[in-house]
Amino acid sequence: MAKKLIVQKFGGSSVANVERIKKVAQKVVGYKRKGCDLVVVVSALGDTTDELVELANKINIEPSEREMDMLLSTGEQISVALLAMAIHKLGFEAISFTGAQVGIITDSSHTRARIIKINTDKIKEELKKGKIVIVAGFQGATLKKDITTLGRGGSDLTAVALAKELKADTCEIYSDVAGIYTTDPRIEPGARKIPAVTYDEMLEMASLGAQVMQSRSIEVAKKFNVPIHVRSSFSNHTGTMIIHPALIKKISGAKEAKMMEEVVVSGVTMNKSEAKITVCNVPDRPGVAARIFKELSSAGINVDMIVQNVSHLRQTDISFTVHKNQIGKAGKLTRKMAKLLKAGDVLEDRNIARVSIVGVGMKSHFGVAAAMFDALAKNKINIEMISTSDISISCIIQKKFAEKAVRILHKKFKLAKR
Amino acid sequence: MAKKLIVQKFGGSSVANVERIKKVAQKVVGYKRKGCDLVVVVSALGDTTDELVELANKINIEPSEREMDMLLSTGEQISVALLAMAIHKLGFEAISFTGAQVGIITDSSHTRARIIKINTDKIKEELKKGKIVIVAGFQGATLKKDITTLGRGGSDLTAVALAKELKADTCEIYSDVAGIYTTDPRIEPGARKIPAVTYDEMLEMASLGAQVMQSRSIEVAKKFNVPIHVRSSFSNHTGTMIIHPALIKKISGAKEAKMMEEVVVSGVTMNKSEAKITVCNVPDRPGVAARIFKELSSAGINVDMIVQNVSHLRQTDISFTVHKNQIGKAGKLTRKMAKLLKAGDVLEDRNIARVSIVGVGMKSHFGVAAAMFDALAKNKINIEMISTSDISISCIIQKKFAEKAVRILHKKFKLAKR
Repeated sequence: MAKKLIVQKFGGSSVANVERIKKVAQKVVGYKRKGCDLVVVVSALGDTTDELVELANKINIEPSEREMDMLLSTGEQISVALLAMAIHKLGFEAISFTGAQVGIITDSSHTRARIIKINTDKIKEELKKGKIVIVAGFQGATLKKDITTLGRGGSDLTAVALAKELKADTCEIYSDVAGIYTTDPRIEPGARKIPAVTYDEMLEMASLGAQVMQSRSIEVAKKFNVPIHVRSSFSNHTGTMIIHPALIKKISGAKEAKMMEEVVVSGVTMNKSEAKITVCNVPDRPGVAARIFKELSSAGINVDMIVQNVSHLRQTDISFTVHKNQIGKAGKLTRKMAKLLKAGDVLEDRNIARVSIVGVGMKSHFGVAAAMFDALAKNKINIEMISTSDISISCIIQKKFAEKAVRILHKKFKLAKR
Repeated sequence: MAKKLIVQKFGGSSVANVERIKKVAQKVVGYKRKGCDLVVVVSALGDTTDELVELANKINIEPSEREMDMLLSTGEQISVALLAMAIHKLGFEAISFTGAQVGIITDSSHTRARIIKINTDKIKEELKKGKIVIVAGFQGATLKKDITTLGRGGSDLTAVALAKELKADTCEIYSDVAGIYTTDPRIEPGARKIPAVTYDEMLEMASLGAQVMQSRSIEVAKKFNVPIHVRSSFSNHTGTMIIHPALIKKISGAKEAKMMEEVVVSGVTMNKSEAKITVCNVPDRPGVAARIFKELSSAGINVDMIVQNVSHLRQTDISFTVHKNQIGKAGKLTRKMAKLLKAGDVLEDRNIARVSIVGVGMKSHFGVAAAMFDALAKNKINIEMISTSDISISCIIQKKFAEKAVRILHKKFKLAKR
């Protein structure tokens, strides 16, 4: 039987200082002792990346992206060398590589490069020698050997891509989070760790606020069906598996499958980073709304939810949400367009929050949406906007009710620890 | 006429913080404005290298040398990226490279690698585009792409080797020292900056204590006749040229050439890092001294000066100096050998200093040595050992007289400012 190959990724908080690096080394070596082949991807130590960015900004507020990559890639290079030394200290063989050395070839979009291909010969060669292979996350190199970085959270992507190329049995993502929870345990202490979620559920949860893994790496994992295990670097407990829907039931267990609501809703998420813009009395002619959104899009503003009210006297109200950071720019542009289109007032509301429930198969269970709206209404929480996707339902409510709404929905869908 | 090509090297203290990096950028850009092509070699920021070594030692007191190079090379990589950003900020084009990227190929002796060859195509290509090329000092890569470092002071070597390969007009070594002085200005305030010294004089001065450049890079400069200009990064004053003897007179000026002593002696150096061992009553048979030194050499102990007294009653005393760090080991071995060879007592003296005068053509002016001994004797400073080379005369004296001796000799050979 072939040896089990595991790709493990340790985030910045897992290697924040010397003691933690030593603990990671022990964890890695533990797996090696069990006979696994190991490829370990490491992020930069703690806040190194932020510190380097700050340093660069003191010199040039608009640093060249190529030079930024040259600078930032040192963070992971330091980590891999130190982890190799820590593993050596435990009497095991290990060898570290930068992204460039290990053959992670990217395009030349500096600071947000995309992986073109990975040449795994070097890794396989070292694994064959019995070595633990340590790879700097977050980075690669162009064919012209310029160093590139993959954007924030890029180490996850390195791990997933390596797991795919090496046909690893699992890709373990270690961080200071023990797994994916039914909701944020700081808001609802009864939040429960979910044994397994599908890629799509995880994507919803990531984009809706649960910052465990970057969406891009989950998308890659989904595309190539790479099984991911999100878990804590500070314990040995099982975390949450992110896997193909067909495998979910095996892991979640048959007992839970009986109760409809429990199975359908996996978690409740919350997001306070959006703001709402409403344009009143927009003339209800075809293409009017489109012109507003085209203008915003050309200015690089991402519009998230859009709601257009039913027309009344040939006029309508249009509401949409944008990221808080873009509200100033978005408001200004919208007022300009409103004037041009002879619409009415433009209102801005920064005091909103989005609360969402996420779950596979939600769409085919119509009762779920009704249950959500009903629970909020009974608690006198007004729903200002609604949007739905295949696996989520989101409501915009007033920000002051956000935490309360999360607790209500968590209870309603019986997500708490049992 | 071809453009002037200058290789400039800035040491760690020249790029110790953001403000200094900006100053270096201004200096570099000043030369670019004058129409020069520029290749800039940079060391790690301030104490970065020491800090990384400390970090590694906290994890593994005997870190793998390959991983150490992986770790330490990040220091210079940070510097080059930041300097490129600082130059961009001033509106000039610049591009940074690691040693590996720029084609500095070394052997695989990690932490003390030797340069095998340099492929300058990439540098030439970027120079042709009008860019200032910034190269990480101290590092290279093996043919297998493992990152290597060139040992302490390796950035000087990078600069000299690049200057040679690129046939640069000058290699400027910037540091916090304004040039080579007739002696240490902290000991003798009248010390004068020397306009020019030969490679050999500089080698004597470097190995005898004036820590401006690493001997290895001076040797390379001498071998390939690379003109070096040692100067301060904090002023625009001319420093000291290190050049071929044939060029010295042009620079030093004809006026001084008239006075024999002034021309012959370039400087006075002092070194307190040695200790003396004396083996008394050694049987005066052929090969006896050799056996002691062979033993020390096998144990990795560098013996510097050796003096064997004239034989008396078929017995002789042998004195030699070793580095203070090795005195314990050297003393122990010597006592073992003394016993074996039936010699007498072994005495150790850590309170010695070496004072040397350095100058080209000293050998052909016998009066110089006599003048040195006479000056010390007149001031009641006892000379315990003497050694001479083509361009230097060194005396071992008691440590407490070291500074006094330097001042006496500096005056005797009229080296002070005029």
